[in-house]
Amino acid sequence: MSKKVAVVLSGCGVYDGAEINEAVLTLLCLEQQGASYECFAPNIEQMHVINHLTGEPVEGETRNVLVEAARIARGNIRDITQARVAEFDALLVPGGFGAAKNLSNFAVAGAAMDVQPDFLALARAFHDSGKPIGLICIAPVMSAAICGEGARCTIGNDADTAAAITAMGGAHLPCPVSEARVDVTHKLVTTPAYMLAGKVSEAYAGISACVKEVLALA
Amino acid sequence: MSKKVAVVLSGCGVYDGAEINEAVLTLLCLEQQGASYECFAPNIEQMHVINHLTGEPVEGETRNVLVEAARIARGNIRDITQARVAEFDALLVPGGFGAAKNLSNFAVAGAAMDVQPDFLALARAFHDSGKPIGLICIAPVMSAAICGEGARCTIGNDADTAAAITAMGGAHLPCPVSEARVDVTHKLVTTPAYMLAGKVSEAYAGISACVKEVLALA
Repeated sequence: MSKKVAVVLSGCGVYDGAEINEAVLTLLCLEQQGASYECFAPNIEQMHVINHLTGEPVEGETRNVLVEAARIARGNIRDITQARVAEFDALLVPGGFGAAKNLSNFAVAGAAMDVQPDFLALARAFHDSGKPIGLICIAPVMSAAICGEGARCTIGNDADTAAAITAMGGAHLPCPVSEARVDVTHKLVTTPAYMLAGKVSEAYAGISACVKEVLALA
Repeated sequence: MSKKVAVVLSGCGVYDGAEINEAVLTLLCLEQQGASYECFAPNIEQMHVINHLTGEPVEGETRNVLVEAARIARGNIRDITQARVAEFDALLVPGGFGAAKNLSNFAVAGAAMDVQPDFLALARAFHDSGKPIGLICIAPVMSAAICGEGARCTIGNDADTAAAITAMGGAHLPCPVSEARVDVTHKLVTTPAYMLAGKVSEAYAGISACVKEVLALA
């Protein structure tokens, strides 16, 4: 029977939500590697809305993470509070600033960040059940918060982010864009994707490796 | 030298903009097949905004096609009026309702549709220069408007849409999701993608075929 993976999206757009290429490539790689999936997102307001043409915040506009994430999932998505760990073999989380603004507040709080409660409860439940977790791009800053002290992960090679990971109790492993890093002890797989990628095809290579390792641990 | 392709996006989200999977897969396939690309979108208001979780229109909200399309392109996108045919070897247009609501009004006007003037001017300029055009998903309803009477295209197998294509002076060719159809005379390549696809990987197969044929004609 094919393995089933819960995919958590954090909105729709690199600067205020899920990185769109990473999200689509995650779903493509899961299909290509014989897994099925279901998408979830927290039913909360985004931290803010960024005009992706100018890079500037849009004053006075609010968007909901679940509603916007539904754009990527073509409507096939549910509130993260409805996700049941028993129905899945693994968890995957694409990146984008949504992981650092909506799933956590790392983008503004750095190493003093909090993880969004609904997402943290689900992710810890996967970890506590011994089910593997794949975190992509900037999402690995949540590694120690989810998997505990000593969780080894990569965000590529950014020194400041690596230092924040260490400060939060994790351990950073450098990694090129085309690869993933596996912490077998914590059943955690991470890949840099658009922390390093300059092209869609580069992100595809790393996400494909990440999905392969997650499914191998499931 | 690698071929360079102009990709026109029509927003961000299947129900009111560009189909996100199709857009990302188009860019991925272009990279995988050795081409470079630049993204463009019309700088106009979307026909409307659809809540992709409920499928319902959102009253009182407006979004700009170019600004939303910038989410897919990570900000690397320009106003379609700035596209110069001389700089490109081919044109590719992913689908989604944006092609039938923003690039044209086929979704409401059917065979009496108009094509958005900025997009039509660019697409006809490609055609008039003898450069190939690839239209994906529902975008092929614009085939005759762009390439002229007798343009042969596919939207898969939907009888009503095929009849509308015929009524507008085109000719419809049935096509499975994994393939593309080529009208060598009109230098037009089309593929059904999410007119038929049930999975991302199915759309990938057809878009890969479409990109291959477009590049072969370029």
